[in-house]
Amino acid sequence: MYIEQIKNPYDVKKLNKEALKTLAAEIRNALINKLSKRGGHFGPNLGMVEATIALHYVFDSPKDKIVFDVSHQSYAHKMLTGRKDAFLYEEHYGDVSGYSNPKESEHDFFTIGHTSTSVSLACGLAKARDLKGEGGNVIAVIGDGSLSGGEALEGLDYAPELKSNLIIVVNDNDMSIAENHGGLYENLKLLRESDGKAERNIFKAFGLEYVFVKDGNDINSLIEAFKSVKDVNKAVVVHICTEKGKGYTPAEQSKEAWHYCAPFNMENGKSLAKASGADYASMTADYLLGKMKEDKTLVAVTSGTPAVFGFNAEKRKEAGAQFADVGIAEETAVALSSGVACGGGKPVWGVYSTFVQRTFDQLSQDLCINKNPAVILNFWASIYAMNDVTHLGIYDIPLLSNIPNLVYLAPVTKEEYFSMLDWSLKQREHPVAIRVPVEVINGAKPVERDWGVLNRYGVEQRGQDVAVLALGSFYGLGERACTAIEAITGVKPTLIKPYYISGLDELLLEELKSDHKIVVTLEDGILDGGFGEKVARFYGSSSVKVLNYGFRKEFLDRFNAEDVLNESGITPEAIAGDISELLK
Amino acid sequence: MYIEQIKNPYDVKKLNKEALKTLAAEIRNALINKLSKRGGHFGPNLGMVEATIALHYVFDSPKDKIVFDVSHQSYAHKMLTGRKDAFLYEEHYGDVSGYSNPKESEHDFFTIGHTSTSVSLACGLAKARDLKGEGGNVIAVIGDGSLSGGEALEGLDYAPELKSNLIIVVNDNDMSIAENHGGLYENLKLLRESDGKAERNIFKAFGLEYVFVKDGNDINSLIEAFKSVKDVNKAVVVHICTEKGKGYTPAEQSKEAWHYCAPFNMENGKSLAKASGADYASMTADYLLGKMKEDKTLVAVTSGTPAVFGFNAEKRKEAGAQFADVGIAEETAVALSSGVACGGGKPVWGVYSTFVQRTFDQLSQDLCINKNPAVILNFWASIYAMNDVTHLGIYDIPLLSNIPNLVYLAPVTKEEYFSMLDWSLKQREHPVAIRVPVEVINGAKPVERDWGVLNRYGVEQRGQDVAVLALGSFYGLGERACTAIEAITGVKPTLIKPYYISGLDELLLEELKSDHKIVVTLEDGILDGGFGEKVARFYGSSSVKVLNYGFRKEFLDRFNAEDVLNESGITPEAIAGDISELLK
Repeated sequence: MYIEQIKNPYDVKKLNKEALKTLAAEIRNALINKLSKRGGHFGPNLGMVEATIALHYVFDSPKDKIVFDVSHQSYAHKMLTGRKDAFLYEEHYGDVSGYSNPKESEHDFFTIGHTSTSVSLACGLAKARDLKGEGGNVIAVIGDGSLSGGEALEGLDYAPELKSNLIIVVNDNDMSIAENHGGLYENLKLLRESDGKAERNIFKAFGLEYVFVKDGNDINSLIEAFKSVKDVNKAVVVHICTEKGKGYTPAEQSKEAWHYCAPFNMENGKSLAKASGADYASMTADYLLGKMKEDKTLVAVTSGTPAVFGFNAEKRKEAGAQFADVGIAEETAVALSSGVACGGGKPVWGVYSTFVQRTFDQLSQDLCINKNPAVILNFWASIYAMNDVTHLGIYDIPLLSNIPNLVYLAPVTKEEYFSMLDWSLKQREHPVAIRVPVEVINGAKPVERDWGVLNRYGVEQRGQDVAVLALGSFYGLGERACTAIEAITGVKPTLIKPYYISGLDELLLEELKSDHKIVVTLEDGILDGGFGEKVARFYGSSSVKVLNYGFRKEFLDRFNAEDVLNESGITPEAIAGDISELLK
Repeated sequence: MYIEQIKNPYDVKKLNKEALKTLAAEIRNALINKLSKRGGHFGPNLGMVEATIALHYVFDSPKDKIVFDVSHQSYAHKMLTGRKDAFLYEEHYGDVSGYSNPKESEHDFFTIGHTSTSVSLACGLAKARDLKGEGGNVIAVIGDGSLSGGEALEGLDYAPELKSNLIIVVNDNDMSIAENHGGLYENLKLLRESDGKAERNIFKAFGLEYVFVKDGNDINSLIEAFKSVKDVNKAVVVHICTEKGKGYTPAEQSKEAWHYCAPFNMENGKSLAKASGADYASMTADYLLGKMKEDKTLVAVTSGTPAVFGFNAEKRKEAGAQFADVGIAEETAVALSSGVACGGGKPVWGVYSTFVQRTFDQLSQDLCINKNPAVILNFWASIYAMNDVTHLGIYDIPLLSNIPNLVYLAPVTKEEYFSMLDWSLKQREHPVAIRVPVEVINGAKPVERDWGVLNRYGVEQRGQDVAVLALGSFYGLGERACTAIEAITGVKPTLIKPYYISGLDELLLEELKSDHKIVVTLEDGILDGGFGEKVARFYGSSSVKVLNYGFRKEFLDRFNAEDVLNESGITPEAIAGDISELLK
């Protein structure tokens, strides 16, 4: 196979056009084979095989620098830059990450996992090149779905300012993760239908030069286009039309489902992932669909990731105008939600924890200064969620809980979650965020509480000497810790559900002083700026001792959650040991 | 005067065209008069007088809802919506804020002070209207300078998705705060020069309908244009060309200087503000200009606010290609800086604390995961800086100090600041942010320290029992607190400059345990998620007591800093009192 001979991009240049086509087929087969066994980003990578070959055929990486937006289409690039073994041989599958990674290769310049950043990052590389008086091309590769993000649009606007070489390859497969939303996609359609000739052209309007490639899966056309822009001294867009999932029929037919895949049966495309039973995504969509029927002002909002709260195509259709996808544009999702709430509606924005951090200023300024009653459902905020460094969900507590006026809630059971969601939709006083647990736990009892009486924690077990404040998804750990503490020390601890991440139950904490010596906090997030530190501050001037359990402030990557818990001393046994020591 | 008769927008509708012109002149006079005495946003407000009159003549506020981006052009609106007295009569000048404010009037829908949010917020109002089946127009007014912000561009993209009434008035005065930067401004120029007829049209490319008004200071043209779009059932842009500072010659001639003004002499336009002596803005620009000459890879980066670090037009010219203004696009400023650093250059981004919060995700993902050595100078991070609720600088510590890999420094003296800046430019290991003090304090001694040995605090006075960790701009307070503590208790405290906001000097803190009973932290920011809480966590399991001084998590508005300090118990006397009590 050709691919076995490719040690670096220069080997690509040695192949003739026919061999390049064969190489593409080999890469595609390897991708389908590996992804069927390991899962990963499927559709975007399959669509970019030819373009990646053509890029490396024409340009000279790493002197010419290619920046892949969001990295969902960087696998072929990895195969052509010394990392083919990680795609060809099962024993090496784990050698590379799913994202571009400078630690793996000199052909990668940034670790990237969030969308819409490539153009601005590439502008920086180009600026450095120019300041240093060096040559070479800088190339940003960005999918059409990523274009709706503000940072990408800022980048398109800024790029012509460089007045220097910058090549932006727009990989237009006519899909975001789900379908695209936004006016610019009408323009992309017009450009596709007019073979790039339409005068109404978003890229030209931003001051960019423009080249159109009708068949972005045809290597020859791509090589010709890339050659035509190599070493230009301005910012130029090469708009290539590719097919998402190309070469694997099920993926060509069901583009949304095949954006990312779990391991699957290659013959029929059926997922090999076990049915996971009850999950909060589908339960949330069903709950909201039910509420929508009673209340026409309720609208579910997504920023390009409808699956996060269970809105598949069918449920989106059922919701109709009560479902709003703003495209990958988290900032606008927050502003839109604030506006809807201001106008008397009930917006519910579902978002992954790793992406909520794209909206700090909108949460603060657009939403919380205005105290509009929007609801944010923050999913996958846990060490047990995604474990790639770019997609961690453990930084949300410092981010959300320190914004004034935002009520940030941590339910433990399913009943508590839906009770909180219910309240958040009824009330008109507060912006509310809910940290949706990863695991569904059925509560023993129905929940009857007015969550509007803020910052009142729940005492689940009344003991003495030691109190354990176990936040949200770490409540089960708190229960086990209490058992272990009692077993080792004989002391029966008080066990508390704090419920409110954004505020202290000062009455309860004050009361604990009378017969408690140690207060323990457990949180499924980093310690710095988090919940436990607020408790430590509260007790700072008292004789009550405080032990905070959570994660160090660091960027973890591809870890096993249990390992992290063990290394952080967050196990019932370790906690009980610490307490026992401190009680001596 | 007509203006004295305007109680609400309906009174505007009663006037004939000639009277409307007179009204415009009256409003402009009142604005110039008030602003000469009180200062405020000058140029943008003067340019929007006619358009605001025309908006209220044609539309029916508050049924029709007008959202003013950034509020820099909302003064005439305030005058026409029941708040004229605050502009006409000196005794009422303080009755209104400088920003749109729902607490003041039913004609304001959001408190807004950051740019680029109006379109997305207006989309939300429109969505709520449609969900409720109501009618009425929703109008976003946005300046050309604000268009470069990602959130605004996202909003332009999303607006056509509503398939419903949304009117976006683009107030094009051909200026941002300084001159505009970005490719879209070439397009605005083309549209102005072609009377809106050019086929290359950024708004149409986003799928928006488009109406052009050549003279945006001509009431008749404006009324005609607004009438033509009233009650349309789609998203439409009305592009009006106005003159920034219109009606006051000095402001027409020096648009950047007159974006905002301090009180001035109306006769000659000369500022009445006292010359403020040494300031870090101009010292920083001069320092960087010096460094640029030695190092051609150093680039100063701004996101539309060059004045923040002293780069006036002359200094920008001197810096040439080593100064980069990305337009109001903070996210791109961070990504660009990361890219420049990755490419071997030395970027220094100067930013106001209130705007650094627009970049959390870029700081985390684009910059800190990649550990690129960019430098961020964070200005006006203090209770003594801006005091409008939308422009507070006291939330940066929770934001910046909890991001892994970012070194966040707090200098006290001028010598420390420049020593840190020097180090941050030399090293290639860390992204570094510096919290630039508001007040310039000359140090008694030169600074010789390797800031690369992270998290080593400075012990300025060695005492016992009590240690005071006085961060950055609160160091002077720390000194005074020590004096007061000693006076009251007879105990001479240890006084420490923590220097590193993002990390604890664990060795020193551990050592303090041996002969200290109380550790005090002082920080010029909110307590929640801040520096002091980390110290409280550190000592949580020990017998050392910790007292944290800082501000409550709340949105303050138009306050006197000394009042806030007094109310928060952050005075030398109050602190000494607390210590004395605790030592008993």
